[in-house]
Amino acid sequence: MSDIKQLIEQIKKLDTKNMYMNDFFLTWEKTDDEIAATFAVAEGLRALREKNISTKIFDSGLAISLFRDNSTRTRFSFASAANLLGLEVQDLDEGKSQIAHGETVRETANMISFMADVIGIRDDMYIGKGNTYMRNVANYVKEGYEDGVLEQRPTLVNLQCDIDHPTQVMSDMLHVINTFGGVENLKGKKVAMTWAYSPSYGKPLSVPQGVIGLMTRFGMDVTLAHPKGYDLMGDVEEVAKKQAAASGGSYTKTYDMDEAFKDADIVYPKSWASFAAMEQRTELYGNGDFDGIKALEKQLLAENAKHTDWECTEEKMAKTKDGKALYLHCLPADITGVSCKQGEVAGSVFDRYREPLYKQAGYKPYIIAAMMLLSKVEDPGKTLEKLLKQGTPRFNG
Amino acid sequence: MSDIKQLIEQIKKLDTKNMYMNDFFLTWEKTDDEIAATFAVAEGLRALREKNISTKIFDSGLAISLFRDNSTRTRFSFASAANLLGLEVQDLDEGKSQIAHGETVRETANMISFMADVIGIRDDMYIGKGNTYMRNVANYVKEGYEDGVLEQRPTLVNLQCDIDHPTQVMSDMLHVINTFGGVENLKGKKVAMTWAYSPSYGKPLSVPQGVIGLMTRFGMDVTLAHPKGYDLMGDVEEVAKKQAAASGGSYTKTYDMDEAFKDADIVYPKSWASFAAMEQRTELYGNGDFDGIKALEKQLLAENAKHTDWECTEEKMAKTKDGKALYLHCLPADITGVSCKQGEVAGSVFDRYREPLYKQAGYKPYIIAAMMLLSKVEDPGKTLEKLLKQGTPRFNG
Amino acid sequence: MSDIKQLIEQIKKLDTKNMYMNDFFLTWEKTDDEIAATFAVAEGLRALREKNISTKIFDSGLAISLFRDNSTRTRFSFASAANLLGLEVQDLDEGKSQIAHGETVRETANMISFMADVIGIRDDMYIGKGNTYMRNVANYVKEGYEDGVLEQRPTLVNLQCDIDHPTQVMSDMLHVINTFGGVENLKGKKVAMTWAYSPSYGKPLSVPQGVIGLMTRFGMDVTLAHPKGYDLMGDVEEVAKKQAAASGGSYTKTYDMDEAFKDADIVYPKSWASFAAMEQRTELYGNGDFDGIKALEKQLLAENAKHTDWECTEEKMAKTKDGKALYLHCLPADITGVSCKQGEVAGSVFDRYREPLYKQAGYKPYIIAAMMLLSKVEDPGKTLEKLLKQGTPRFNG
Repeated sequence: MSDIKQLIEQIKKLDTKNMYMNDFFLTWEKTDDEIAATFAVAEGLRALREKNISTKIFDSGLAISLFRDNSTRTRFSFASAANLLGLEVQDLDEGKSQIAHGETVRETANMISFMADVIGIRDDMYIGKGNTYMRNVANYVKEGYEDGVLEQRPTLVNLQCDIDHPTQVMSDMLHVINTFGGVENLKGKKVAMTWAYSPSYGKPLSVPQGVIGLMTRFGMDVTLAHPKGYDLMGDVEEVAKKQAAASGGSYTKTYDMDEAFKDADIVYPKSWASFAAMEQRTELYGNGDFDGIKALEKQLLAENAKHTDWECTEEKMAKTKDGKALYLHCLPADITGVSCKQGEVAGSVFDRYREPLYKQAGYKPYIIAAMMLLSKVEDPGKTLEKLLKQGTPRFNG
Repeated sequence: MSDIKQLIEQIKKLDTKNMYMNDFFLTWEKTDDEIAATFAVAEGLRALREKNISTKIFDSGLAISLFRDNSTRTRFSFASAANLLGLEVQDLDEGKSQIAHGETVRETANMISFMADVIGIRDDMYIGKGNTYMRNVANYVKEGYEDGVLEQRPTLVNLQCDIDHPTQVMSDMLHVINTFGGVENLKGKKVAMTWAYSPSYGKPLSVPQGVIGLMTRFGMDVTLAHPKGYDLMGDVEEVAKKQAAASGGSYTKTYDMDEAFKDADIVYPKSWASFAAMEQRTELYGNGDFDGIKALEKQLLAENAKHTDWECTEEKMAKTKDGKALYLHCLPADITGVSCKQGEVAGSVFDRYREPLYKQAGYKPYIIAAMMLLSKVEDPGKTLEKLLKQGTPRFNG
Repeated sequence: MSDIKQLIEQIKKLDTKNMYMNDFFLTWEKTDDEIAATFAVAEGLRALREKNISTKIFDSGLAISLFRDNSTRTRFSFASAANLLGLEVQDLDEGKSQIAHGETVRETANMISFMADVIGIRDDMYIGKGNTYMRNVANYVKEGYEDGVLEQRPTLVNLQCDIDHPTQVMSDMLHVINTFGGVENLKGKKVAMTWAYSPSYGKPLSVPQGVIGLMTRFGMDVTLAHPKGYDLMGDVEEVAKKQAAASGGSYTKTYDMDEAFKDADIVYPKSWASFAAMEQRTELYGNGDFDGIKALEKQLLAENAKHTDWECTEEKMAKTKDGKALYLHCLPADITGVSCKQGEVAGSVFDRYREPLYKQAGYKPYIIAAMMLLSKVEDPGKTLEKLLKQGTPRFNG
């Protein structure tokens, strides 16, 4: 129990009052205390569950999910998190269509939320739209709560947007923290967030953006590497620079994968489409120009094909710190010779890291549950303390 | 707590014994006591939830939903109601096809109901079919229960049929009661249930029928207004006439929207297809005559287009009592200049009533939960009393 | 309560230690004690529920379902079983596509299982594939558990594969046991598992295989009858022969429906496709040869049509023991003159057995729940005893 008690003490020292009755959109909008609290609550919830102690803070209530892009992993993580806290998932199935009209969003958001405690949204397909949509939904239900339409204020968790993928990169980061034995051991560690070749088209920017937007906060030396033309959103790079400076680390950019991998402690090789291409695609979709989209896709795949050497091979891994950098991926990866002919990572590299990769993914349900909990309780330390004291068994066979 | 205690006292005085182990098909099949009890239990459940008191009367059990027409709002209301009482929703996804064969309905109804406590069905597309189908399902599971096939008798809640939409109009009515400060203040109030223009085709009759079939019970002067040819089911009009007479109110019909709006205290302008057209469509569907359906749709839209002046404009609203009638709509409305070029209601009118409209919708989860509860417990007053006394927190963060 | 206490005493005497933390793939892999325990726990759970005692052994947790073939009945049974024990169902909707690649199965299995206590899979379409797939999933999550990726080991319940349909045939068998007043009364009873004509194509082999693979364990004389060419898997017939010999019963095969029905105490007339045809179909699907599939379907229906006399008519029923054999079917049946022009069973025969057939189906949620429970608790007798003692009401209205 000492772990849990330590975590509780740690949480009590953190200022989380602005997380209460609030949403989780972007990691860089959160203070260091808030980020730390999210990790600590996630770890606390896991510790309680591992000790077979129920973490249900709700007796009833709904968790609404809205996935505007296919999802299996995040869907199950959200469902697990909701269930862990006692909420029942109801999925709002809109298809992938953007509900363009403000009036409709406001109304739907309220109509589904009469008994909703949390809302989780994935909307990562359209540059400049996903995050905006989430904020609209959050504002509308906040307004609904203030007007007395809703009895409780549903708080929103960003399950991936066009800008950030906070539940993913917070899980990645917690995995890094635990792998290196604590946040205090990260100063000066070298992180390589690099593009990697994929035979598929148009992967979102939210993961690399989320990574540079989060990992620059811990005094690490973060390098972004990609072929020319695969730029991320400039605003997020600005965030990364500022945070790196403030945390005593650094943020650099290169067009050379080897340079990024050299002496890296952590590598995150992953494919994405360029910001410019995603913007173009968003516009084409907006105009319903499906021929244009096909042409763009063809062009982007041809562009990708020029960079098949951006693969996380054994040779590349050998260049990292002691040849043993921690390999990260949000999964599923395009594995050369396994899920595709040539892809982001060599089969033997992936194989060696499979177990840690799965553990990395395993943080997500707890990260989501922590975000939910922190938006619902004023004193999270006290809440975990109460759960520990109650000691209701999760499984009572 | 005094509110809840008063509600409990009120419920105890009402005769609800025939609601126990029974279904909710049509409001006019229910006695005044039963209607009053549904409202009071809905209010009681809301009061308990607002005081953060759990209203779970089930520890486990299923609530089966079957939507034969698209639904987001009612689907979420049903899920919320089930969750509020402790039941888990399982959706039976049959698509929109009519299961024509009696044998199949009997078998499916039993096969899905081994642990079902309630069943909710929406089947509003086919005139003469939806309500009949629900009664079949209800009879088959009742028989299954009596034969010992099912351990509990699943009770049925009509989530909209071809005749009535009881969960909607009971919510509308509870909103009216609360807006006017109690059922005792409704005598002599003027209600205008009017057709309104919509650029879409074939909206069900269940809302206007439900409204005249319910609101005529409260001593109000209910006027139905629509263009010639948009008649409702004659049987329901007969019900409305009888109830109006019995309650000391009146039921009148006019083909003039202005006349209906004149001095109205409550207006409910809403589009629908005519009974005759719906009958025709049902027959065409039955024959698989899709060309016929297309032709009918074209004809009906052309017919609709002759009545674009049936719009709830500011001018029309100005004619109502002090220009301030309560505007009702079951949502979503066709809002001129917002969700369509020209529709049922002017943008400025809708805007002014948005908040009350959302509150009107917010009664539905509680109305559905009340219908469920009243079909499951013999002494609803005692049940609410027990829940109040237990005082289990819904949220215990 | 004496029933429950007797059942608990019975369970305590059975050796179920190998069911703990284990999967349920095929009935013939289970010992007699394990089969008996599954029945007894199912009966115990039912007895508790009938006495309105909660059987929730989980406070939270997920039950993952994966249906690779359409299902309403088993889907609802699985959901009911999960709910009965306190788990929330999350459905993994993969469509019907075979996920061919091992790597993907391993990853997906782990990614969805972070908080999964049980997994139920139906995969009955492809000969030589379904059961193999289930074992792969079970192995991968077992490995995930052992590697510390998963906090709990999700156990797997076979909801129908290419070889067996254990939840169905265990329900059938429990119905037989209760109809004949106990397992001790089954010795020497004659069972006719026969093919029957259906105008539809390609019904799985899992039910007839499951029946001969289970019912031969109880000292009964089991006859398999089908037209030439409709053979089952040879391996399963071998199992049936061995078990029949060991239990003091017999297993015989005939190509004559009348011979099988003669003096039968139990008849199970049901259509299936031949093993050879199913193998051919699996290969065609594997090659994406849809023209070949169409041709095969045509050929198989033509073959079926030669055997329309394999119908369970009144004449055939008259040949059974006192004309009153227990008629079994897994439902839905192809009923002559009801669900098809000519089918597996005469309308009047089906009608006479409808109530017992529905009861037969009603065992399934309890059988599934028993399989789940036995994979989760070391001492099932003690678990039921605890639930009985706790006496938490399932419904507390």
